[in-house]
Amino acid sequence: MTLTFADPSALTHDELEEGTAFAPRFDASGLVTAVAIETGSNQLLMLAHMNAEALSLTLETGFAHYWSRSRGKIWKKGESSGELQRLVEIRVDCDQDAVVIEVEQTGRGAACHTGRKSCFYRCVVVADDKPSLVDIGLPKLFDPKKVY
Amino acid sequence: MTLTFADPSALTHDELEEGTAFAPRFDASGLVTAVAIETGSNQLLMLAHMNAEALSLTLETGFAHYWSRSRGKIWKKGESSGELQRLVEIRVDCDQDAVVIEVEQTGRGAACHTGRKSCFYRCVVVADDKPSLVDIGLPKLFDPKKVY
Repeated sequence: MTLTFADPSALTHDELEEGTAFAPRFDASGLVTAVAIETGSNQLLMLAHMNAEALSLTLETGFAHYWSRSRGKIWKKGESSGELQRLVEIRVDCDQDAVVIEVEQTGRGAACHTGRKSCFYRCVVVADDKPSLVDIGLPKLFDPKKVY
Repeated sequence: MTLTFADPSALTHDELEEGTAFAPRFDASGLVTAVAIETGSNQLLMLAHMNAEALSLTLETGFAHYWSRSRGKIWKKGESSGELQRLVEIRVDCDQDAVVIEVEQTGRGAACHTGRKSCFYRCVVVADDKPSLVDIGLPKLFDPKKVY
């Protein structure tokens, strides 16, 4: 069974932004942006994309599924690493082209393929008008060479 | 003055993911995805896009700038509404195609043009295999009809 979503082009602007119809505005590639956050802490874990099938599978199975743009296929998060994301809630933004998925990050707690909890492990610093990156020190919870 | 970013195509995979060069991977439209979160609470406020100029302006001025895809121009967040976002930190993800900007949301505290703190004010519920949206109750901190 695959869930059916409303057609955003059939909605008024007000219905899209204030209504109860879930009408994801998939882009030209059929994708919406999906941001995964950890339930409780609100920590931002990762950013990925979902097509209609990935969104439907996430809602149906209770585990996050994404569309891998690099591999061109549906990707159940954690299927290789064991780091499954158990769904708590999906929220959609005002114009319905992005979703937040609040999850419980299972396994060793590493959402990132580098072994870290979050993909956002470096911050930008600017010195002498030159931007560079500094590691903020998130530990590696697994060794990616041993997992993939 | 505009900041210069490193060229991601000149980096190895390891340099891109573990190195100190800030080399944003702008897409075919010249954009990276930018997620704004509130400093302290980690609450996800909004999702938008930045081109090189918006990213540079954000780092130079200390206030969030985005690229408006609908209006086709640089957009200083809050320039119409007063809801400026003061930059605390920018973090980049593993493959450098997305950034998180941690901000202090000024003004009335409303990042969303609907007047709410966050753009993610509706959650998805599924009943009888039909998905729909439920308002999670974020208050409107301003009346958009009076602001825009």
